[in-house]
Amino acid sequence: MSRVKTEAVPRRLHLNVNILHSGFVPSAWRLDDANPRAFVDVNHYVRVAQIAEEGKLDAVFLADNAAIVDQIDFRPITALEPTVLLASIAAATTHIGVIGTASTSYNEPYNIARRFATLDHVSNGRAGWNVVTTADLPSARNFGRDAVPDHAERYQRAAEFTELVKVLWDSWEDDAFVGDKAGGRFVDVSKVHAVGYRGRYFDVQGPLNLPRSPQGHPVVLQAGGSPDGRDLAARHAEAVFSASQSFEESAAYRRDLNARAAAYGRQGVKVLAGLTTIIGSTEAEAVRRRDDLIDQIPWRYSLNRLAGTLGIDVERLKLDEPLPDDLTLPAGGNGNHTFFHATIAQARRHGYTVRELIRSLAGGTGHRVIVGTPEQIADDIERWFNGGAADGFNLMPDALPSGLRDFVDGVVPILRKRGIFRSEYEGTTLREHLGLTRPDHSQSWRKRA
Amino acid sequence: MSRVKTEAVPRRLHLNVNILHSGFVPSAWRLDDANPRAFVDVNHYVRVAQIAEEGKLDAVFLADNAAIVDQIDFRPITALEPTVLLASIAAATTHIGVIGTASTSYNEPYNIARRFATLDHVSNGRAGWNVVTTADLPSARNFGRDAVPDHAERYQRAAEFTELVKVLWDSWEDDAFVGDKAGGRFVDVSKVHAVGYRGRYFDVQGPLNLPRSPQGHPVVLQAGGSPDGRDLAARHAEAVFSASQSFEESAAYRRDLNARAAAYGRQGVKVLAGLTTIIGSTEAEAVRRRDDLIDQIPWRYSLNRLAGTLGIDVERLKLDEPLPDDLTLPAGGNGNHTFFHATIAQARRHGYTVRELIRSLAGGTGHRVIVGTPEQIADDIERWFNGGAADGFNLMPDALPSGLRDFVDGVVPILRKRGIFRSEYEGTTLREHLGLTRPDHSQSWRKRA
Repeated sequence: MSRVKTEAVPRRLHLNVNILHSGFVPSAWRLDDANPRAFVDVNHYVRVAQIAEEGKLDAVFLADNAAIVDQIDFRPITALEPTVLLASIAAATTHIGVIGTASTSYNEPYNIARRFATLDHVSNGRAGWNVVTTADLPSARNFGRDAVPDHAERYQRAAEFTELVKVLWDSWEDDAFVGDKAGGRFVDVSKVHAVGYRGRYFDVQGPLNLPRSPQGHPVVLQAGGSPDGRDLAARHAEAVFSASQSFEESAAYRRDLNARAAAYGRQGVKVLAGLTTIIGSTEAEAVRRRDDLIDQIPWRYSLNRLAGTLGIDVERLKLDEPLPDDLTLPAGGNGNHTFFHATIAQARRHGYTVRELIRSLAGGTGHRVIVGTPEQIADDIERWFNGGAADGFNLMPDALPSGLRDFVDGVVPILRKRGIFRSEYEGTTLREHLGLTRPDHSQSWRKRA
Repeated sequence: MSRVKTEAVPRRLHLNVNILHSGFVPSAWRLDDANPRAFVDVNHYVRVAQIAEEGKLDAVFLADNAAIVDQIDFRPITALEPTVLLASIAAATTHIGVIGTASTSYNEPYNIARRFATLDHVSNGRAGWNVVTTADLPSARNFGRDAVPDHAERYQRAAEFTELVKVLWDSWEDDAFVGDKAGGRFVDVSKVHAVGYRGRYFDVQGPLNLPRSPQGHPVVLQAGGSPDGRDLAARHAEAVFSASQSFEESAAYRRDLNARAAAYGRQGVKVLAGLTTIIGSTEAEAVRRRDDLIDQIPWRYSLNRLAGTLGIDVERLKLDEPLPDDLTLPAGGNGNHTFFHATIAQARRHGYTVRELIRSLAGGTGHRVIVGTPEQIADDIERWFNGGAADGFNLMPDALPSGLRDFVDGVVPILRKRGIFRSEYEGTTLREHLGLTRPDHSQSWRKRA
């Protein structure tokens, strides 16, 4: 399992769906066929996951916040805790991966190691952990802080946290469990190891109190945009979520990330680009769907949200003028680097007014939006994939489940005809879907020695 | 919903099953029909829960430890994290309650409030939280501590933690969610409240980032044996798990707990007594099953475990002599009060040697064990229930699923014939099963005002 595979394997396109409650567009809950209560309805999440599995997608993905960080008077928010919700989803599916977000700033490593290992056990090897450091003030204030921890500190803690979680996942050797009824030997304790981790932030004795999980490690994912974030991804992530508006930016990001990973002796970190799709059977129909959705987002909401992304007072934004010239990242290096830069780049590239910028982002905060027919969307995906701008996509359909239904029925068959997407699952674990090897249990021990 | 019900409601017996992996007896995994890997097999837990639901039991219960606190060379341990596992169980059942243990010493209140509220949402109102303070050193060492926090400190933190969790559960009024598509109003933000909690241990701004859950509050349970533990239960718990070896002890415990609760203006805290059953179609068959199980537990294991419960060196225990005379609770007030006292009381009452004591406890650490026919077990349950020694039982079958199968097929029908246990669920939530009212959202606010 630790062998380096040298035979040439054709690159495979990877597709996740981000189940952003009612969908990416803030007004998605207002569509005629939408269930407005979807954001807290387990049946909604299960149904979306089942459609994704029908389409043979790699995984469902759940974002997370431990605070209200959007304007709930206008739209749904990330509410249900991901690991619990993903266990519900895993119980109703058989193959699709289940990736959840959890913060390294407001959790304990032992608890996170256990929860994701448990999710890996109950899903038979389909779990993934998306590592985030949590940059918003409302979250900080729910955990005894008056301010967001400094950017550098958050990333130092995250690096130590993630390393420690991996070490805990490796604290049981793969064959430590014996279960010999006749001999009365349950576990070979010589194969269960204390970790004795003493770091700057954490002091954890270990071992974990459960056997190594089916994947060895649940898959580790991250979404680093800043230099610190990219470094964390290069050291620890097996796949990253990116938010690039252009092919060139995404290709450059992918090259940079792989160069950073290579410096740590690591290869093949998958770049999954964020992609919102608004699909119509004709381009005109897609544009109409987009416009209908956008027209139901109050401008007051969109302006506040854009101001939040840019870290400025909302009064500085004028709908029919360009963005202010003097935008800089919020002090202390906080705020979301990725969305800050992606949003400004999008406005400057096209010379957009604030109103045009908001329309082009479909009410979002920086992810790329394509509006078109299944054929047009498949063309775009193929171009990015074959051109090396991405290894796959973290899909954020405009509205759920309808936007994913259209993707699975319309776009996926075209990608299959072109030979770049699977017709059947070849394996049963998320690692197998993503083409990742199962880590040897001694990997993290060797590194520390 | 906050009305005090005054009409006379017949007392109802409550039965939970504690899914202690392979079963209560340490050798349960060695039975011919046992799956030795059950402790990490989600299908095992689901199957046990489905049998319990078939028997119309109130709930399944999961204990928890965030460390290895038993001898894994000989037996299974509590491994999978409860909230994730309970979500899997909830997905495969429709009525039975799902109660999970989580520690107030090694978690953050915001995270716990959210996870159990999420479990309540995904189970449609079946969640319960068993509050524990965690007294063992291996757990402390997994969370940056060199020693177990002082007993009093643990309980002060637990009281503040539990109060804060309830306040967070009440931070959304029941009708805060609007979901008005035409008007574009998602949530009435005037009904979502910051909590601004500033305590000795916690500083949490709130509100919670999800709507009030179906039960208002997930049911709060506890297992306080010490005076501090009983006080915590009296203030916050709606049901308690007890470990009494005799009718008189249990009745006295129940009276004491209800008197303490009354002092806080609370009534009707349910006492659910721990009960291990070893069932045979004749008494001789039951005894044979017990002996077969006990004979497969290595004495070395049992001696170590008993020494741990008593907080003494194992060398001080002689199989054919009585317990030492000079036993006192471990220094600092730590150790498990309940099991320490229950174990000693059991030995003294019967004049047992160490060997006899271990047999009478079926390899356990203090919970009561009945060995007999379904009729004998039903008699005992009826006597305790009708005599006021308990409102119900936290069942810990000797082995799972076989011991629960025998209970549901053998004991439950007798309890029904005698009119003390339900034939059908009357409601769909855990609160309804336990006969608990749904807390008014403003309850915790009024108390703090």
